[in-house]
Amino acid sequence: MNDSHEQIIQKAQILVEALPYIRAYTNKYVVIKYGGNAMNNPEIIKTILQDVAALKTVGVFPVLVHGGGPEINAMLARVGKESKFVNGLRVTDAETMDIVQMVLCGKINKNICSLLGTMGVKAVGLSGKDGGLIGVRKKPAVGGVDLGYVGEITSVNADMIEDLCLEDYVPVIASIGTDASGASYNINADTAAGEVGAAIGAHKLIYLTDIDGIRRDPADPSTLMPEVRVAEVERMIENGTISGGMIPKVRSCVTAIKRGIKHVNIVCGTIPHSILVELFTDRGIGTLIRE
Amino acid sequence: MNDSHEQIIQKAQILVEALPYIRAYTNKYVVIKYGGNAMNNPEIIKTILQDVAALKTVGVFPVLVHGGGPEINAMLARVGKESKFVNGLRVTDAETMDIVQMVLCGKINKNICSLLGTMGVKAVGLSGKDGGLIGVRKKPAVGGVDLGYVGEITSVNADMIEDLCLEDYVPVIASIGTDASGASYNINADTAAGEVGAAIGAHKLIYLTDIDGIRRDPADPSTLMPEVRVAEVERMIENGTISGGMIPKVRSCVTAIKRGIKHVNIVCGTIPHSILVELFTDRGIGTLIRE
Amino acid sequence: MNDSHEQIIQKAQILVEALPYIRAYTNKYVVIKYGGNAMNNPEIIKTILQDVAALKTVGVFPVLVHGGGPEINAMLARVGKESKFVNGLRVTDAETMDIVQMVLCGKINKNICSLLGTMGVKAVGLSGKDGGLIGVRKKPAVGGVDLGYVGEITSVNADMIEDLCLEDYVPVIASIGTDASGASYNINADTAAGEVGAAIGAHKLIYLTDIDGIRRDPADPSTLMPEVRVAEVERMIENGTISGGMIPKVRSCVTAIKRGIKHVNIVCGTIPHSILVELFTDRGIGTLIRE
Amino acid sequence: MNDSHEQIIQKAQILVEALPYIRAYTNKYVVIKYGGNAMNNPEIIKTILQDVAALKTVGVFPVLVHGGGPEINAMLARVGKESKFVNGLRVTDAETMDIVQMVLCGKINKNICSLLGTMGVKAVGLSGKDGGLIGVRKKPAVGGVDLGYVGEITSVNADMIEDLCLEDYVPVIASIGTDASGASYNINADTAAGEVGAAIGAHKLIYLTDIDGIRRDPADPSTLMPEVRVAEVERMIENGTISGGMIPKVRSCVTAIKRGIKHVNIVCGTIPHSILVELFTDRGIGTLIRE
Amino acid sequence: MNDSHEQIIQKAQILVEALPYIRAYTNKYVVIKYGGNAMNNPEIIKTILQDVAALKTVGVFPVLVHGGGPEINAMLARVGKESKFVNGLRVTDAETMDIVQMVLCGKINKNICSLLGTMGVKAVGLSGKDGGLIGVRKKPAVGGVDLGYVGEITSVNADMIEDLCLEDYVPVIASIGTDASGASYNINADTAAGEVGAAIGAHKLIYLTDIDGIRRDPADPSTLMPEVRVAEVERMIENGTISGGMIPKVRSCVTAIKRGIKHVNIVCGTIPHSILVELFTDRGIGTLIRE
Amino acid sequence: MNDSHEQIIQKAQILVEALPYIRAYTNKYVVIKYGGNAMNNPEIIKTILQDVAALKTVGVFPVLVHGGGPEINAMLARVGKESKFVNGLRVTDAETMDIVQMVLCGKINKNICSLLGTMGVKAVGLSGKDGGLIGVRKKPAVGGVDLGYVGEITSVNADMIEDLCLEDYVPVIASIGTDASGASYNINADTAAGEVGAAIGAHKLIYLTDIDGIRRDPADPSTLMPEVRVAEVERMIENGTISGGMIPKVRSCVTAIKRGIKHVNIVCGTIPHSILVELFTDRGIGTLIRE
Repeated sequence: MNDSHEQIIQKAQILVEALPYIRAYTNKYVVIKYGGNAMNNPEIIKTILQDVAALKTVGVFPVLVHGGGPEINAMLARVGKESKFVNGLRVTDAETMDIVQMVLCGKINKNICSLLGTMGVKAVGLSGKDGGLIGVRKKPAVGGVDLGYVGEITSVNADMIEDLCLEDYVPVIASIGTDASGASYNINADTAAGEVGAAIGAHKLIYLTDIDGIRRDPADPSTLMPEVRVAEVERMIENGTISGGMIPKVRSCVTAIKRGIKHVNIVCGTIPHSILVELFTDRGIGTLIRE
Repeated sequence: MNDSHEQIIQKAQILVEALPYIRAYTNKYVVIKYGGNAMNNPEIIKTILQDVAALKTVGVFPVLVHGGGPEINAMLARVGKESKFVNGLRVTDAETMDIVQMVLCGKINKNICSLLGTMGVKAVGLSGKDGGLIGVRKKPAVGGVDLGYVGEITSVNADMIEDLCLEDYVPVIASIGTDASGASYNINADTAAGEVGAAIGAHKLIYLTDIDGIRRDPADPSTLMPEVRVAEVERMIENGTISGGMIPKVRSCVTAIKRGIKHVNIVCGTIPHSILVELFTDRGIGTLIRE
Repeated sequence: MNDSHEQIIQKAQILVEALPYIRAYTNKYVVIKYGGNAMNNPEIIKTILQDVAALKTVGVFPVLVHGGGPEINAMLARVGKESKFVNGLRVTDAETMDIVQMVLCGKINKNICSLLGTMGVKAVGLSGKDGGLIGVRKKPAVGGVDLGYVGEITSVNADMIEDLCLEDYVPVIASIGTDASGASYNINADTAAGEVGAAIGAHKLIYLTDIDGIRRDPADPSTLMPEVRVAEVERMIENGTISGGMIPKVRSCVTAIKRGIKHVNIVCGTIPHSILVELFTDRGIGTLIRE
Repeated sequence: MNDSHEQIIQKAQILVEALPYIRAYTNKYVVIKYGGNAMNNPEIIKTILQDVAALKTVGVFPVLVHGGGPEINAMLARVGKESKFVNGLRVTDAETMDIVQMVLCGKINKNICSLLGTMGVKAVGLSGKDGGLIGVRKKPAVGGVDLGYVGEITSVNADMIEDLCLEDYVPVIASIGTDASGASYNINADTAAGEVGAAIGAHKLIYLTDIDGIRRDPADPSTLMPEVRVAEVERMIENGTISGGMIPKVRSCVTAIKRGIKHVNIVCGTIPHSILVELFTDRGIGTLIRE
Repeated sequence: MNDSHEQIIQKAQILVEALPYIRAYTNKYVVIKYGGNAMNNPEIIKTILQDVAALKTVGVFPVLVHGGGPEINAMLARVGKESKFVNGLRVTDAETMDIVQMVLCGKINKNICSLLGTMGVKAVGLSGKDGGLIGVRKKPAVGGVDLGYVGEITSVNADMIEDLCLEDYVPVIASIGTDASGASYNINADTAAGEVGAAIGAHKLIYLTDIDGIRRDPADPSTLMPEVRVAEVERMIENGTISGGMIPKVRSCVTAIKRGIKHVNIVCGTIPHSILVELFTDRGIGTLIRE
Repeated sequence: MNDSHEQIIQKAQILVEALPYIRAYTNKYVVIKYGGNAMNNPEIIKTILQDVAALKTVGVFPVLVHGGGPEINAMLARVGKESKFVNGLRVTDAETMDIVQMVLCGKINKNICSLLGTMGVKAVGLSGKDGGLIGVRKKPAVGGVDLGYVGEITSVNADMIEDLCLEDYVPVIASIGTDASGASYNINADTAAGEVGAAIGAHKLIYLTDIDGIRRDPADPSTLMPEVRVAEVERMIENGTISGGMIPKVRSCVTAIKRGIKHVNIVCGTIPHSILVELFTDRGIGTLIRE
């Protein structure tokens, strides 16, 4: 059965709207930061990766960056390793680092890759330790406490990501860095996504979260802000509009914008196909952070 | 303002549906036969050419083939030249041929090109006389009447169309052929579209008409047939389901299919963006003729 | 039978003279302005196009630009449309423009193409309306009279001509321009040839006429001037040495030289193979205009 | 100080001998199976990886394949997970598989990569889960015991390894496979090395072990056999010359040879630079298995 | 001063005739055998090499092959070395071979190269000893007399000649061959020209001599035969029409034709520019040997 | 039989040392000046050319430059031509020049080529007369004595050498130059090597001699200097440390260094494989001249 005349018009509308975006993103890098609590739901993971596969289909170069807090905590608990935090940063001794690396690079990262594989996408699971992808230096002590293996990013090997994209692979990057001696360091995944995006000249950087964006009143979904200016961010943090885990995320957005990425969005990863709607429609979705 | 959650879901749906088609048509030839009575409305022409421009945007290679009956008649009338018809074929003396050529190649064709130009598309207006594009032989007399400069297609220079498409041009082809002496011949535009499509290995051939497809009851739009098998065509002509001007069109479809084009559609050109909906949605539009 | 010793020496002489020129023109653009009264003779047209074919043979990139005054007049007369002229410029209303376009693009242009086709040359018939080839703006009123669709060239799409030449096609260009709205404009063919030549960095621009060049005494062929300096032109116009239709032609030459074309010649198109002799012999033929 | 005349002669000798081998291995794949007990010594790991870096220097394409028995056991012990073995194969439930994957892909693999990075080599840490690198099917039950996630290799994505090598990366492959559902499977690293080598048409496959090769009398180093024919292997297993852990290794060699790899060697990884000596000298080192 | 109308027509004629030949020889190999008594005149050498330079100009790939009888004899005389001949073949001991090689490769060959250099042509002087260009085996004894270093051609390294031509060099080849031990051998220059031509798939092979071709009556220039069929050759040798030094030359022609070269000509090198006239005019010059 | 453990270690040592050098010289030009008295020994010639062949094997681009004093003298003696010397420069009349050219280009040069051919190397024998390789001007009179055909180098056609190397040929260059008229000139082979090296941007220039380098006490081999600074050279000439034939050689080294060649060595060609040891070991051999 054909569609009704009305349905045809509506489909046509959406296609006419989408095609220029699709063209605009062809052969462009789109970095997607993925991870966190809500991302653990297998159904949600699946629709997110389906979008990644769909992007690949129309010639976009998606690059995934992920952390993995909840699973790390679970594994640390299992081996009876307690975590100490300073200012929200995990104090990471060698043993902890080992566990973090195993969970991020060995479990989460590789499972994303094989899941993308089942969707016909050739994904390569990387960390900062592969090909010198993410170079770091040790983060200075915070309030006199040595954080151990916690790093600050000093370099990104953009060539490697570009080589893989051009060869038709999707890089999936675990947020682990390395220093000149080859040691491993814990790095913030939001920051890593911004640095990777800046290094490869990404056209867009999307932070997937479990809420729908920044709200004027965090408790009221109807106050979602489609757009927040960089200049407003600090004031919004001060007055509590942006708070909790959203603070480092929004600050990563600001840094990413300052590093030259034009389009940075905070988008709700639990809405099915939110990536496609954000990229390929006029109105988009979530909150756009911009200069 | 962002879309409602429902609208997002719906847009996502259509995008998820469209992306694989868009990919599938990238770098593929789509021949669009355009022309006839209803095509004279400037608004309709505009939305058709917008679709052509949109196809170009996502990397499809559109090729336009057109005739121009009504305008030819107007010009012949203006110079006081009467037309004689035999079996629906115009008896074409040298003087008539001259007028036909001027109207098709000099007026309609070039106007399509500059209109596409205003939409950012580089269109090249061709006829069978350019680069040996369409070679013909004189059609034998019909019922003892010499038809004059009416030709049957004997060759198509596929290279030329491919060269232009690869250089990012949209070929717009007026249905005029030429023989070894360089003389001009009138050719049927529907047939020309089929031959051109077969020569370049088109992925799809779309006949734009002014009705919505083939109907079981021509008077009742609700009897539109989404699909007609080649084997049924002759019977449908016999029993009158297919009649009048639709007969040669459907027969051109059948020939095109026999020449190797997999997807041949009769689509209503007056529905806005019917080309996009036909190409990029599961259900399509109009009538698909198939083996 | 072999040639006599003398004939051999003479042939050798001409070959030795020609070979370096042939090499020098390989892969170079040569623009040939063709048209006007004397060009209507089918025999002359044929030898001119044979030269174009011969140039193609040895790797030159010929580009033809043509007008078509006499045939336009004939068609206008046929539809009973009278022409008004202001300062030698045709006042061009929409109806006239339509006829001009049909004759130039639909008749003359396409017939040149198919004639070149019979000589084994793949010619593509273009106008300023194809691929944004020649952009124009409306010419201001002259002496208070609105000239209608008469244009001044503002841009030439050199890429298109180069793409076609590199793909082995000979572009044949009708002197019609277009503006941003897609409307058609009448443009002077001599000027068009100069602008096209300048845009593509032509190595040579040849104006074919029906006299043998510029003569000191227009009535006396023995006073043909092999060379005229740009600086002399205006004085020669003042004193009547250059007069009538030769004035705009010579001024186009001067403009072309100022636009950067080194070699501009006025050559008699009615001498068989005058193009070859001009290009490939030391002495050339006709009048060279130079700085 | 210059070398003595004698030293010069000797160096020259070795160079003259080595150069043709170096040439012969340029742009050729050499698969090195690395792992097992003795490979845990950091000093030994370092000289092995230095050899890999040296190979890269002269244009060889080294590919590393590794397992990681001892470290897996340590981690399993740490989380209190007991391993059951059937015929030397670990019965691998989902929980065990998770640990195996984390240790191989997350710890050993990535640490090799960053260590190679400190030597100026861009290494990419892969597993069978990346880009569909190693496809497997579940191994049938052995003696009625379901082995769980233990796989048999069914496919290798040679393109991926070749792409990476050509882009100047060294692939480091953890011996984990995946099936169509994306699940992980334990695979034998010796077999994996053979299959990878066969898939990419490796010029040479080297098994690094902790003894110096196959000995006629396993207890007596002076009975090292420089060469063993495929046809002798089974008899040598029967009579006990080849025994214990050497049996599966030698059988992997035989399989690799049958899969088309010409040069398969068992070499002692604890001799410094044994890889270079094996590749670039006439006599080589260890035991060559051959048809 | 311009040419007269008549001169123009005549030049045009010759150009129209020549252009297709020029095109036809572009990027084609033309082997020119040069040498012998009459070739010693510096004036004649100069016009021959000017033709070679002219061929290069229009994209032909000329290849020169030369011997050097008279100069060899002079040098042998100078060092007091007497030559013994068997059946017209020089008995060549090691000392003689040395002299032959020095004269051909060291004197004549290099002087041609620097003379071509003064005409703007980059010529590379080769012999069969360079790059394994011409491999030979020792010619068997003739009538019981060992001929010494006289060779029969067994291989030609076509790649080398092609590489040089494609890099824009003109290979100039001295007729010396070499065997597997690197020793030098005297070879017949006419034969060498034929073998080289066959190896590179030459389009034409021209033997320059000091008479105007084959004459029915050798004493009467008016009996020059423009064409001789291969089938006639032996009969013409028998009846004396072909005699003396012309016999081996014509036989080399026949062999060359059998080796696959289509156009083989015997042309008088003392007529100025005979090479150009032979290649680029309908009638050619000298005698064409053909199947 | 395998090597002893000690031998393996030693071989590994040398390989580890050599590999980075081999890599560093890949696709680099190494100019080797070869010639002089001691070079006449066929055994020595053979090991030198074997080294050249070995360099080719690992991707180095060797370029040979040679003179030929002793053989020239022998040939001049044979034709009874006496040589006069002024300041160590041979007064070269036309007749002498002819002999010099024949011996260098016709004998020595071509024999090196065919000898390299027997080792699987495609060598092309060149002189300054080929492709304008070495341009010269006549050297001014020395002490009022006209030296005849003795030249000073004014230009080197680096393209030609590079083209040949890239096509996999080894250029072998006889030290003969040419001027604008095509005449031949005698040039110093040491100087020629320096100029050629500078023109092609050689990575290294090696002068093969018959002593082991520069000695503090020329009579005492144990005083060999591994390194001499450019600044010391003139003082060492003054105080007699550098004397005789070594003076022009060392001065050529100095000039070569000033022309931009970084590594210039004087090496004893009679030590087997001295070229390989010099290039591929840390200590090298002979005397390095450096800034």
